[in-house]
Amino acid sequence: MKTIVIHGTVLTVNVQNEVIFDGAIAYENGKLTYVGPTPIDLSSYDEVIDAKGKYIMPGLVNTHGHLGMSLLRGYSDDTPLQQWLEEKMWPLEGQFTGEHVKWGSSLSIIEMIRTGTTTFVDMYDHMDEVAKLVVETGQRAALCRGMIGLCSEEERKQKLADSVAFSREWHNQADGRITVMMAPHAPYTCSPEFIQQILDKAEELNLPMHIHMSETQWEVAQNVQDYGVRPVAHLENLGVFNRPTLVAHAVHLTDEEIDILAKYDVKVSHNIVSNLKLASGVAPVPKMLEKGVSVSLGTDSTASNNNLNLFEELKLAAILHKGVTFDPIVVPAEVALRMATINGADGVFQKDQLGSLEVGKAADFIMLDANQAHYHPAHNPISHVVYAGNGRDVTDTVVAGKFLMRNRELLTIDEERAIFEANRMFNLLKR
Amino acid sequence: MKTIVIHGTVLTVNVQNEVIFDGAIAYENGKLTYVGPTPIDLSSYDEVIDAKGKYIMPGLVNTHGHLGMSLLRGYSDDTPLQQWLEEKMWPLEGQFTGEHVKWGSSLSIIEMIRTGTTTFVDMYDHMDEVAKLVVETGQRAALCRGMIGLCSEEERKQKLADSVAFSREWHNQADGRITVMMAPHAPYTCSPEFIQQILDKAEELNLPMHIHMSETQWEVAQNVQDYGVRPVAHLENLGVFNRPTLVAHAVHLTDEEIDILAKYDVKVSHNIVSNLKLASGVAPVPKMLEKGVSVSLGTDSTASNNNLNLFEELKLAAILHKGVTFDPIVVPAEVALRMATINGADGVFQKDQLGSLEVGKAADFIMLDANQAHYHPAHNPISHVVYAGNGRDVTDTVVAGKFLMRNRELLTIDEERAIFEANRMFNLLKR
Ligand SMILES: [Zn+2]
Ligand SMILES: [Zn+2]
Repeated sequence: MKTIVIHGTVLTVNVQNEVIFDGAIAYENGKLTYVGPTPIDLSSYDEVIDAKGKYIMPGLVNTHGHLGMSLLRGYSDDTPLQQWLEEKMWPLEGQFTGEHVKWGSSLSIIEMIRTGTTTFVDMYDHMDEVAKLVVETGQRAALCRGMIGLCSEEERKQKLADSVAFSREWHNQADGRITVMMAPHAPYTCSPEFIQQILDKAEELNLPMHIHMSETQWEVAQNVQDYGVRPVAHLENLGVFNRPTLVAHAVHLTDEEIDILAKYDVKVSHNIVSNLKLASGVAPVPKMLEKGVSVSLGTDSTASNNNLNLFEELKLAAILHKGVTFDPIVVPAEVALRMATINGADGVFQKDQLGSLEVGKAADFIMLDANQAHYHPAHNPISHVVYAGNGRDVTDTVVAGKFLMRNRELLTIDEERAIFEANRMFNLLKR
Repeated sequence: MKTIVIHGTVLTVNVQNEVIFDGAIAYENGKLTYVGPTPIDLSSYDEVIDAKGKYIMPGLVNTHGHLGMSLLRGYSDDTPLQQWLEEKMWPLEGQFTGEHVKWGSSLSIIEMIRTGTTTFVDMYDHMDEVAKLVVETGQRAALCRGMIGLCSEEERKQKLADSVAFSREWHNQADGRITVMMAPHAPYTCSPEFIQQILDKAEELNLPMHIHMSETQWEVAQNVQDYGVRPVAHLENLGVFNRPTLVAHAVHLTDEEIDILAKYDVKVSHNIVSNLKLASGVAPVPKMLEKGVSVSLGTDSTASNNNLNLFEELKLAAILHKGVTFDPIVVPAEVALRMATINGADGVFQKDQLGSLEVGKAADFIMLDANQAHYHPAHNPISHVVYAGNGRDVTDTVVAGKFLMRNRELLTIDEERAIFEANRMFNLLKR
């Protein structure tokens, strides 16, 4: 079926960041076949959708999260990271079954569809449940069975075996909407040997790596104490960066470390809200961008955010670094928008397929209701999306040409049921 | 008429920050007559409104803005403050007539009603237009004719005469919904003599003062160069703080300056987004709170924000200071919520009437649709409002018992018309 969406304001996020007023996009078999001005002759299309008063832009890519943790939203705020993890999150997560993960992840997926995220990265456990949700809901995802090594040798072996089995079953499934990464949790939770074993499997299966890195000052100091080097050199020495790698956080970096990340083309997921809320600090994003590091945006989990509305990260990416560096020029709106879209596509190693509206790429797009006061005067759409916009302005979310939300109605998941079941599962946890 | 709203989750923001599950509020003649559990006997009420699945909380108070500037939303981003003001904003604002202010302010009022602000502070020109809008739309406002002294003696006299006439006409009008403050723009744009003249009038008319202060490092250095002291001592020496005073920004403060603000009970409007976007810096809010300074939240204008959704400031108040001070305990959710509500009421010197849901106070409240994924699991409403919520969750906005928005429908202002006229007026400006 050939579909065309017409009369919208199209934010292409192509190399020129082109904006097309009275623009159109067309797609067939899940791929974009046309991006340009609204054509006069529409006779070759089976379906014509009027987007007058709407913005049409690439779906957002959320490059770091833990979907299942939405079951713990609001359970513990205003606490230091290590205490929050060790005393609050881990004891409850230890009780999680596939059922907990299913309903926590359902809350997460609903939020993401509603606020315009079409592709997400998830590092968690019971990943089969998440993969099944991706199949059902139609989203796109890079999934990883997160492996914390603070356990017995036997358990570590089991986790790695899980990861391998998961990747064999799910990598490139769901019409290619699911890809898999190998994910040691962090250098401070995985021994060098364990990371090495995981890396070997990633090479064998030809999968990228995803890992938390340099989130807190504590973690960096701990790494130096344990291994004599900071986390970047540590992972470089282990050979991790020889594989395609996406690191989450990268808050505490020296200039030399940024050079190393640039040299190996390591992708960075910048988790602004989470880093602020957990008091981890502010990542040196302007420096990373200056040195050519590919920086995308992630929400981290709702336990440290506490939502998955990536428009918040989009605006913060554009304003926070100005404020803390006293430089009003850094991370302009266009750059922030690229971080949330095309750089996100790069972060999941699918830059050639996702992240911008260009012919041949996947028909992953969102539409925003711009017929509202805060999008006017109407002259500067990129500024309005970044600085004035809101994830809740999203009316339509489309992945591979399929509507997951249309006129704010969710088409592939039952929100009421998810809310009911998530509350039920949360209330069963021992707290 | 006696109205009761029942079966909601009531966030009272009273001294104990009490949250009432299955709660109710009742009001008559614009004042709250009951706040508590949903009563069994409803026979004494003329109108019963079911708020099942909703949060009921005090309307937000936005303590600093320039409503008319919404006409310049997105006109100039990513620019330093002085250049932005002098080369971009002032030349266009110089062309503003009452008509520009009317339609720019209409965009602003629509945004604020939609995102739950019931009381706002506006410092601008052509304030009669704003006052008329407040009368028509039913919002509550503290209005000031902002006075920039960088002009001839004659013009300064005219501005002060304008201010006096405006206050005589509008202070305590619209059933008390309009109050007036006297507003020299800033120490760097008003000579000590001009500030003194304004202060004399404020004393004569018994009005509070509102002024920008210590927004940028540049401004502080300039003050020292011009007057030998930093802005706080400068205003203290002029006697400004002997009157009730609300200062906007207060970004660059020494510990001694914070002590002075505390001593005089100067109210501070913290404009997080604007301070970040214009690269002004981050105000020392945890220190101010520690020393007992009353800190509320402001959006500043949409030209430096670029929206008036105070829920963004609410969340940022709770997360930004944690991130930049590396202290995850500062500004917990409850404190941020108070900054957006009861401290805002204090910032407009109406703490006894506004800012919390308590019997005898004004029936200024908002309702949020909490029957959405991001408000679940449902156990921690204050956390959810602050960390997960969104201004766009507001379904109902009520001022003095009158619905300005009901089930997301605006009842007192025409959004389509405002959008049309604002674009028309913007396009007429010489750029
Ligand atoms: Zn994480
Ligand atoms: Zn201002």
